[in-house]
Amino acid sequence: MPNPTAAILVIGDEILSGRTREANAYHLAGELSRVGIDLREIRVVPDDHAVIVDALNALRVAHAHVFTSGGIGPTHDDITADAVAAAFGVGIDVRDDARELIEKALAARGVTATADQLRMARIPDGATLIVNGVSGAPGFSIGNVHVMAGVPSIFVAMLAIVLPKLEAGTPRLSREVRFEVGEGRIATPLRRLAEEMPQLTVGSYPFRDGDVRGTNIVVRGTDPALLDEAVARLEELRASVG
Amino acid sequence: MPNPTAAILVIGDEILSGRTREANAYHLAGELSRVGIDLREIRVVPDDHAVIVDALNALRVAHAHVFTSGGIGPTHDDITADAVAAAFGVGIDVRDDARELIEKALAARGVTATADQLRMARIPDGATLIVNGVSGAPGFSIGNVHVMAGVPSIFVAMLAIVLPKLEAGTPRLSREVRFEVGEGRIATPLRRLAEEMPQLTVGSYPFRDGDVRGTNIVVRGTDPALLDEAVARLEELRASVG
Repeated sequence: MPNPTAAILVIGDEILSGRTREANAYHLAGELSRVGIDLREIRVVPDDHAVIVDALNALRVAHAHVFTSGGIGPTHDDITADAVAAAFGVGIDVRDDARELIEKALAARGVTATADQLRMARIPDGATLIVNGVSGAPGFSIGNVHVMAGVPSIFVAMLAIVLPKLEAGTPRLSREVRFEVGEGRIATPLRRLAEEMPQLTVGSYPFRDGDVRGTNIVVRGTDPALLDEAVARLEELRASVG
Repeated sequence: MPNPTAAILVIGDEILSGRTREANAYHLAGELSRVGIDLREIRVVPDDHAVIVDALNALRVAHAHVFTSGGIGPTHDDITADAVAAAFGVGIDVRDDARELIEKALAARGVTATADQLRMARIPDGATLIVNGVSGAPGFSIGNVHVMAGVPSIFVAMLAIVLPKLEAGTPRLSREVRFEVGEGRIATPLRRLAEEMPQLTVGSYPFRDGDVRGTNIVVRGTDPALLDEAVARLEELRASVG
């Protein structure tokens, strides 16, 4: 059975303007590989209600799981929760359990929640909260969409809560063989390997290391024995071109 | 007049598997801000012909400029040029001028081009080559789509060739004011600022610096006088909450 697929929708003008280097998709990619969910798309969009709604609706029908990152804070540019409610066609309002989490976290710092902070307790109808130890403000899951913070430490904490609950697949394993020759020298045998072992993906990544032009070959799949066989063939190839 | 918009389509299993941290979108975002082209979407897709064709066709009608990164080498997993030709409905074949560039670069290293390396001279009909000083293999532009390498040093070199030729807009300027209070404390005046200065975007980015919970406010726009005014108002706000 093929693995379930996933996408991440990153929401934030700060990524598209070049101010901030996106970090959460890379973390998600590694974690999903580990549990056997295939990440098939990363999409970054601006803080624009209509664009977020359209992207969410495209991704949630195409994939088993959709993760979002960003836009769930207390300020005017945090519009993700409302866009998710609109995408699902459900209402959204401040929810008591979410408000209590936020008030409790602020009280621990000796602060009373402002009306703006309570905006973070606005949760679409029918969602389940993602309660985490780093941020008082929760994320939430609705249908197959998991809405998480953009701040990397909070994204990591929320993903650790959500991931064990998801339908997973067979973990993808990967092995890498380093060649100290350029891609062009080994392209033909690599194509043959990819054709003869269709259960694996064979990726070819050129690198430059000082004066050395080399190529890292990455084989990925779910069957350790097949990966061993591919690595043995690659090592044989390496001996023949070395 | 609004600035022209752009998107980047990053092609590569290695990003989606978590093996490689994507780097070109961040570089592109900064360069486009500088010349006044608004990057509106970053999309990362796998080495899958149909997915690449669909994404290209969605992005090239939605944006003035589309950049692609990755998948233009000599190996079996380099399928971008064929996907671009299919998206435009044009033929593709080895082109003499592209072949000469590749042969010349290889000859300089004392190597004769293999059939696989000459695959890199396959160029869609009607495209213009992106000849650059780093890689013998050229990128190409066809219509509003600019096809570039995934290797960051080559992507940077190709973008430097392409960017000056594009219809640009008014550069976006940005200014940043650091608050040593959380977002919740300043959300109401920030919303008012964003409403009263609709020509600017006002972004709010929380940070944690040791024990300090702070917020960086970024204002962006094209008019330096308006940005000065916004910064003055933010500094006044900072003095009042400090």
